[in-house]
Amino acid sequence: MARPMNMAEKILAAHAGLDEVVPGQLIECDLDLILSNDVTAPIAIKEFRKIGLDKVFDPTKIALVPDHYVPAKDIKSAEQAKIVRDFAYEQGITHYYEVGCMGVEHALLPEQGVVGAGDLIIGSDSHTCTYGALGAFSTGVGSTDAGVGYATGRAWFKVPESLLFRIEGELRPGVSGKDVILHIIGLIGVDGALYKAMEFTGSAIRSMSMDSRMAISNMAIEAGGKAGLIEVDDITRAYMDGRVERPYTEYHSDPDARYERVYEIDAADIEPTVAWPHLPSNTHPVSESRHIAIDQAVIGSCTNGRIEDMRAAAEVLRGRTVAPNVRCIVIPATQQVYRQCMEEGLMGVFLDANCAVSTPTCGPCLGGYMGILAAGERAIATTNRNFVGRMGHPTSEVYLASPAVAAASAVLGRIGLPEDID
Amino acid sequence: MARPMNMAEKILAAHAGLDEVVPGQLIECDLDLILSNDVTAPIAIKEFRKIGLDKVFDPTKIALVPDHYVPAKDIKSAEQAKIVRDFAYEQGITHYYEVGCMGVEHALLPEQGVVGAGDLIIGSDSHTCTYGALGAFSTGVGSTDAGVGYATGRAWFKVPESLLFRIEGELRPGVSGKDVILHIIGLIGVDGALYKAMEFTGSAIRSMSMDSRMAISNMAIEAGGKAGLIEVDDITRAYMDGRVERPYTEYHSDPDARYERVYEIDAADIEPTVAWPHLPSNTHPVSESRHIAIDQAVIGSCTNGRIEDMRAAAEVLRGRTVAPNVRCIVIPATQQVYRQCMEEGLMGVFLDANCAVSTPTCGPCLGGYMGILAAGERAIATTNRNFVGRMGHPTSEVYLASPAVAAASAVLGRIGLPEDID
Repeated sequence: MARPMNMAEKILAAHAGLDEVVPGQLIECDLDLILSNDVTAPIAIKEFRKIGLDKVFDPTKIALVPDHYVPAKDIKSAEQAKIVRDFAYEQGITHYYEVGCMGVEHALLPEQGVVGAGDLIIGSDSHTCTYGALGAFSTGVGSTDAGVGYATGRAWFKVPESLLFRIEGELRPGVSGKDVILHIIGLIGVDGALYKAMEFTGSAIRSMSMDSRMAISNMAIEAGGKAGLIEVDDITRAYMDGRVERPYTEYHSDPDARYERVYEIDAADIEPTVAWPHLPSNTHPVSESRHIAIDQAVIGSCTNGRIEDMRAAAEVLRGRTVAPNVRCIVIPATQQVYRQCMEEGLMGVFLDANCAVSTPTCGPCLGGYMGILAAGERAIATTNRNFVGRMGHPTSEVYLASPAVAAASAVLGRIGLPEDID
Repeated sequence: MARPMNMAEKILAAHAGLDEVVPGQLIECDLDLILSNDVTAPIAIKEFRKIGLDKVFDPTKIALVPDHYVPAKDIKSAEQAKIVRDFAYEQGITHYYEVGCMGVEHALLPEQGVVGAGDLIIGSDSHTCTYGALGAFSTGVGSTDAGVGYATGRAWFKVPESLLFRIEGELRPGVSGKDVILHIIGLIGVDGALYKAMEFTGSAIRSMSMDSRMAISNMAIEAGGKAGLIEVDDITRAYMDGRVERPYTEYHSDPDARYERVYEIDAADIEPTVAWPHLPSNTHPVSESRHIAIDQAVIGSCTNGRIEDMRAAAEVLRGRTVAPNVRCIVIPATQQVYRQCMEEGLMGVFLDANCAVSTPTCGPCLGGYMGILAAGERAIATTNRNFVGRMGHPTSEVYLASPAVAAASAVLGRIGLPEDID
């Protein structure tokens, strides 16, 4: 009988054809999905070509999602998107998403049922860890590994140590998944989980929607995490059923599974949180950030561009308008979320509030387009990174927060809480 | 008593404080409005600063409309937008439009009632001629002239010769204002009206909506026209009443007014028309363009981004989807048009058809962003210019057409008419 294992170890062992694995072990695994976007796929395709094969290992197990710079922002991005498009048609890639059917990759693939519990997924995008929220082991890799993955359907891994984050109790009103993960990153630092699997558990996690859970897993990489896993429960199953195309497998951590460290967090200790420049770990309570004036608010991204995020923003913006000197840019993460915003009347709220509503794109999050900052400008954003120059000029600043806080700040013209308005 | 004059001459004479003017005469005029956008305002502002005045002549008579590269596509465009924003706040410019309240300038200003009949308007954007559809004399100028306009409220003009285009009869079904102006440009060439005022009249014009008329006046510049005027009638008045802020004045051409040339056009002769690369004058009937495959369709711009255009596109797209290898990008020209698309159910049609719907912007029309073309790619667009490299790579191609034809082509994957579908 195998030694007790946690979720991450079980998924890796199963995909390596082994009964058990231990942290530090080098293994080679079969992959369920390899993902690339318009920035990384061209490099991965080049690496794939070098191998000399005509065909990818399995066109149904590769996802190509142009989302960073499309609809093309310039000739270079048009050329990149064209390389991806041509490759997708040449190889008959099932999960290729054209402009108009597209979305931000880490919102789109779960929504479309392309990823599911128990999957082993690599993606040439750092926020590939998002799918951990569905009980998958999913991690960002370089484009070379992705290219080799296209060819072989395999990748090597060093089995990571695991950290357990147990968040027990009830979150305060107005505290979201985003606040939870910012709180954790603030606690352990941007290298606090370096090459380690983060596992999130506890009653606060179990009571969360999938959208909130995905916001948490999404930012595991911002603490250096290799993956960010959450155990499958009824909420996960309800999300996946009728959505996930392949049979999925639940891997539950054994009660006596080993973790390098266990963090016990009281949900009630978590406040609405903002990460000040220039690290996601530079966290401060919103209540201590009220003096910070902003020029722009961005509500969207693979972290917080899902329908729950749109609803949270709309709830704050309803019947209000953004401050006259603030640009508020709302970017539903997928075409489906965009449609849902329309059908639920959120779009009308955004328009009434003088928001610009964009077609789905990563856009400003990575300094791509759709709201780049000038010198000295300051944005609050529901995105995941606030590194120097991330959203534009090197002297611009990005403050990371939840959709409710970003929306409230847009109205206030400075960082603040919904209850600060009026 | 003054000699007989046409509309253009009457407006210029009135603004020069003269009883009459003759073509070729140099005059100095009082301006009702000076317009700039995010690309041209920074240059105009620099010129204004050189004059050494603290204040613009009248902050209610300057319109600053960031629309070309906003929401900012990169640091440079963010810096340009910031120059305009800072100047607008410093000078208390009434008609400054921030991201989220904005639109494509030549759709926004008529919609918002900032321009009206009898106005004399200069704008540092070539398609300023659009407002001729409201019976204004309105023309594009260089940014230096705009900067001087900010300071003095005045500009010099050489009174242009005038050409009259009389389009009599009923347009065939499916023939729009866009087809009419493409037909005319095909007829007279891109310099056929060089520094001349074009006046459009006849029963076909009189039966047109304001949106169609604006599409016609908008492209006067593509024949080299200084202005593109249409007489005020009940349709104009209905559009302006409750909208135009200042008192407006109707100037009607005298029955015996002089024109350098009069073109008599039978409306029934005009077919749905496409301008092939690389000149707006390279016109062909759609019926002879059916062999041309496309990669992208763009429906929007200051020419055809108004609600009538959106309705025409939606009518074709309803219950259909764009061809899988085509990107169809729909850009309502203003926030109000965007909202109306939502309220009329057009937005749902666009989403069902797999279109990307953008926040208002000039974007791809001028190779800005939101759908730039890669090498060798081909777009059909409701925009106004198809010069080499206009929408991206120098080897890409742009075909100009009406919204109905662009939408049909998106579905067909090649240029065609709505009736070609199925």
